[in-house]
Amino acid sequence: MAAQVEPLRIALAQIDATVGDIDGNAAAIARSIGRARDAGAQLAIFPELALSGYPPEDLLLKTSFVDTIGSALEGLAAEAREIVALVGFPERRDDVYNAAAVLADGRVAAVYHKIFLPNYGVFDEQRYFQAGTEAAVFELNGVGIGVTICEDIWEPGPPATTAALSGAQLIVNLSASPYHAGKPLEREEMLVQRARDNLASVAFCNMVGGQDELVFDGCSSVVDQDGRVLARAPQFDEALVVCGVDPGAASAARLRDARHRAAVRRERDSGAPGARSLGSLSVPPAGPIEVGGPVAEPMGEDEEVYAALVTGLRDYVQKNGFERVVVALSGGIDSALCALVAVDALGPGRVSCVTMPSPYSSEATRADARAIAENLGTDLIELPIDGLMKVYDGLLRPVFDGREPDITEENLQARMRGNIVMALSNKFGWLVLTTGNKSEMSVGYATLYGDMAGGFAVLKDVLKGRVYRLVRWRNESEQRELVPASVLDRPPSAELRYEQRDDQSLPPYDVLDGILTMYVEEDLDAEQIVRDGYEREDVERVIRLVDLAEYKRRQAPPGVKISTRAFGRDRRLPITNRFGR
Amino acid sequence: MAAQVEPLRIALAQIDATVGDIDGNAAAIARSIGRARDAGAQLAIFPELALSGYPPEDLLLKTSFVDTIGSALEGLAAEAREIVALVGFPERRDDVYNAAAVLADGRVAAVYHKIFLPNYGVFDEQRYFQAGTEAAVFELNGVGIGVTICEDIWEPGPPATTAALSGAQLIVNLSASPYHAGKPLEREEMLVQRARDNLASVAFCNMVGGQDELVFDGCSSVVDQDGRVLARAPQFDEALVVCGVDPGAASAARLRDARHRAAVRRERDSGAPGARSLGSLSVPPAGPIEVGGPVAEPMGEDEEVYAALVTGLRDYVQKNGFERVVVALSGGIDSALCALVAVDALGPGRVSCVTMPSPYSSEATRADARAIAENLGTDLIELPIDGLMKVYDGLLRPVFDGREPDITEENLQARMRGNIVMALSNKFGWLVLTTGNKSEMSVGYATLYGDMAGGFAVLKDVLKGRVYRLVRWRNESEQRELVPASVLDRPPSAELRYEQRDDQSLPPYDVLDGILTMYVEEDLDAEQIVRDGYEREDVERVIRLVDLAEYKRRQAPPGVKISTRAFGRDRRLPITNRFGR
Repeated sequence: MAAQVEPLRIALAQIDATVGDIDGNAAAIARSIGRARDAGAQLAIFPELALSGYPPEDLLLKTSFVDTIGSALEGLAAEAREIVALVGFPERRDDVYNAAAVLADGRVAAVYHKIFLPNYGVFDEQRYFQAGTEAAVFELNGVGIGVTICEDIWEPGPPATTAALSGAQLIVNLSASPYHAGKPLEREEMLVQRARDNLASVAFCNMVGGQDELVFDGCSSVVDQDGRVLARAPQFDEALVVCGVDPGAASAARLRDARHRAAVRRERDSGAPGARSLGSLSVPPAGPIEVGGPVAEPMGEDEEVYAALVTGLRDYVQKNGFERVVVALSGGIDSALCALVAVDALGPGRVSCVTMPSPYSSEATRADARAIAENLGTDLIELPIDGLMKVYDGLLRPVFDGREPDITEENLQARMRGNIVMALSNKFGWLVLTTGNKSEMSVGYATLYGDMAGGFAVLKDVLKGRVYRLVRWRNESEQRELVPASVLDRPPSAELRYEQRDDQSLPPYDVLDGILTMYVEEDLDAEQIVRDGYEREDVERVIRLVDLAEYKRRQAPPGVKISTRAFGRDRRLPITNRFGR
Repeated sequence: MAAQVEPLRIALAQIDATVGDIDGNAAAIARSIGRARDAGAQLAIFPELALSGYPPEDLLLKTSFVDTIGSALEGLAAEAREIVALVGFPERRDDVYNAAAVLADGRVAAVYHKIFLPNYGVFDEQRYFQAGTEAAVFELNGVGIGVTICEDIWEPGPPATTAALSGAQLIVNLSASPYHAGKPLEREEMLVQRARDNLASVAFCNMVGGQDELVFDGCSSVVDQDGRVLARAPQFDEALVVCGVDPGAASAARLRDARHRAAVRRERDSGAPGARSLGSLSVPPAGPIEVGGPVAEPMGEDEEVYAALVTGLRDYVQKNGFERVVVALSGGIDSALCALVAVDALGPGRVSCVTMPSPYSSEATRADARAIAENLGTDLIELPIDGLMKVYDGLLRPVFDGREPDITEENLQARMRGNIVMALSNKFGWLVLTTGNKSEMSVGYATLYGDMAGGFAVLKDVLKGRVYRLVRWRNESEQRELVPASVLDRPPSAELRYEQRDDQSLPPYDVLDGILTMYVEEDLDAEQIVRDGYEREDVERVIRLVDLAEYKRRQAPPGVKISTRAFGRDRRLPITNRFGR
């Protein structure tokens, strides 16, 4: 295999599939196959489970779902003429597999089954899939191509090594690799190392777009056997990246590198079966092929996280068919950032703001709410809650029987506002965005059915410190104060009583965020966090609050995961739990 | 091994462990060991993960959690003198295992690791545990005892068969086997078959009590090699069941049964390693031991489901430290059943009812609400919402701009009531019970932040038809109308507008429940359900409603699983999902 081979032109079809939209996904895949062929590509690579969307979760327990996908794949195969396409789909055979179809000559030429099924973090793949057992390689115009799916290539050994030792000069990887801050770089570093270790080019095609709590960042890439990034797709956008790769360079490197020769010998001597052959294919030569392709510049961290929020929100709104969203502007920084993200995701014409002042709302926050709506070009509905507060107060006073005002009355205000935004949602069909950040959600500094009432929690995984950074970054990138400086400067307050400030109830946000990162994202215990320099009193208080708020988070709307540990499917703690109490 | 052996007296310690309460669970285990010894038992068997509670979920990702349990186990071992105890706990070695400790002579004598880790339905064990690889047998006074944990014995083959073929006359099983209607019988039938197949006695010790969405029914049992039930613990109650078993009878049966002899030969010839020996133990003889023990009568289905609801609610309330619950009584059947269950779980002195009539509430339902509270002996707070309705109406009228009243105004009423019950909860520390049933939750016939507002959804997994059956059963078991006949006879209505009836919006409940059972619990598609005799129009409408309501269910409080497929961790569907649309 592969002594003398020509360069190959490949296309990474970084698409935004929608879970369950089998016809829509099939049409998008068909269009991309056509565009790739038009661009002279011989091989088009799609994301993991592109045909079903990812993750389909318990839809995979429905035979009608999996069987409909099987039929759609047959139809799609007809599109693969004069080009080979690798398409991810759930395949039902003796059991259901997370599979990659090799479409060629108008048919399903072969299928590979994912071997490593992640079952940690947000992943539940062992709930749904049987694991494949064999590495697989097919030949295209004499080039050996190893097929892997997502987690397969995060393992340093087989199946990628098996494919390479069996002669593959190019390893492809179909992925639906969810985003967290910093992951694109980390992932590319891993791909670079895999390419070097295997002396093979690596072509990685990732899903892009939002699905409930997950967002896929795209950032598909092609890396050569020396670890050079030949092509990189943009982050958070659909793209068809066409790139020439030179399999001959991998073969040449293997002649020079005695370690590879020795590894092949060891593999053969071990009696391991080697990679299964998926057959030999050819497509017409596409004329001279230049090695390389477009290399998108990676985003900085603030830009990247902001783009993740925009993408996650946009796709939730679009894929669920909402025309418009509504944000309750308090004049504070969280709701300001929410509105910013919403306007960047949907445009100002699809965002309504509502402000619901009470007697505790200061003139300054009222003015800031108006300024933000005006700067963003959204409409603003003003509905004061004073009258409602009086009626609730009168109704409940006899039952409360002389007890002092407390958190009850504060929560009631938040809940009146929740009722109003939900009434707007019901009457006009708008999606309500909730504005709480991760610091608040962690410690339960939020009102269930009040400010937590809504369909999507834009900042659910964004710590307060990052909220400030993102607003500053967005103001700077716009080169004007979309969010007034007064909003950034004012001490945070829920304004549910006179002279209230968040730091009366919570440690300062830099302390809070530091403790939360260690407790929530890193599973450290109080001793370990205290050892890191935090006050024991703060640490124990924060941990207690986090544990006690589990019941609130269970009823929170979904929001975009941007950290290594988001609330939701990523962190599964019991409500009933006495550990540490 | 075991040609001439004496009968053995074993104790099934069916305890109600609390997740995370390591000290509390250890103390309960220590007490049961003492009681078992006092009763002359030589072996005490505890449930799966008794020391941590089940399921501990992501607590298992905290090293401090697993290590604290390790220390607690060491302390507990000191209690095991003149008796052997089998205690379930998560063991951290090279990785974390779902383990059973053999405590004897004041030390941890040996440990078995669960081999089959369920990862379907409500289970996520492959997220947390490394799988064991070896069946294990220890000897106690010459009796061979095979150790298995929960799922291990649901498999017809190893490790139970390996243990039996390696000489175990008694197979023990430590379980935390969650309840659904009918499961206790199904499970016992399985145990009977395992006993017969292995020509061994089987001693099964199950967890009892509620943990968030799960309830464990207990119903521990001992079955002899002929499939006779020698002892059965009560359902839904803690118990220490002491039972004599005769291992000699198993040995005798094996002499007579040539199939066993042939199977032993095949096992030896196969070169399989056989069961690992966990050692040979002895405890002082306990005098003459009679074979058999107490056999509790199994409950009928209505009694059983009702007991599951009572247990699930009681444990949620107790384990989370609530003094009192509050139920909003509408005068309808769902809230009536909720109040019944609450009073049976906690006593009338810990249940407050509140009724919040509107102009749409009929005299009949108002009277029934009062009658139910009076019959149950709970107090009743009456808070009409007319005044609130007027103020919301006035506030929103300008924004709604002449649009007709619709679902918005109906939801608002439900949300005012939600605010009121939550205000009572905040002011007095009461847990709010929500009253919606599974039929409503399925099709979204419930108001998010309205009647769905609360901490525990008692009837979340109870279809409407079953709600009626349970109320009738409870009235009959009390031999008086705790719930007035008028509540059972009146056509269901949400009373959110004049002359409203549920069947204006939904198919009749018998049709609805039939379709839901097939769609939600059995994953069947429209074609299959229509083939079963339902009208296509009904089927398609119900399926659409179920799919569209996923976002509501995501924000619903937890409730007790009593069916084969409950909403929550048991059924994991994406919100963003275009399948079938």
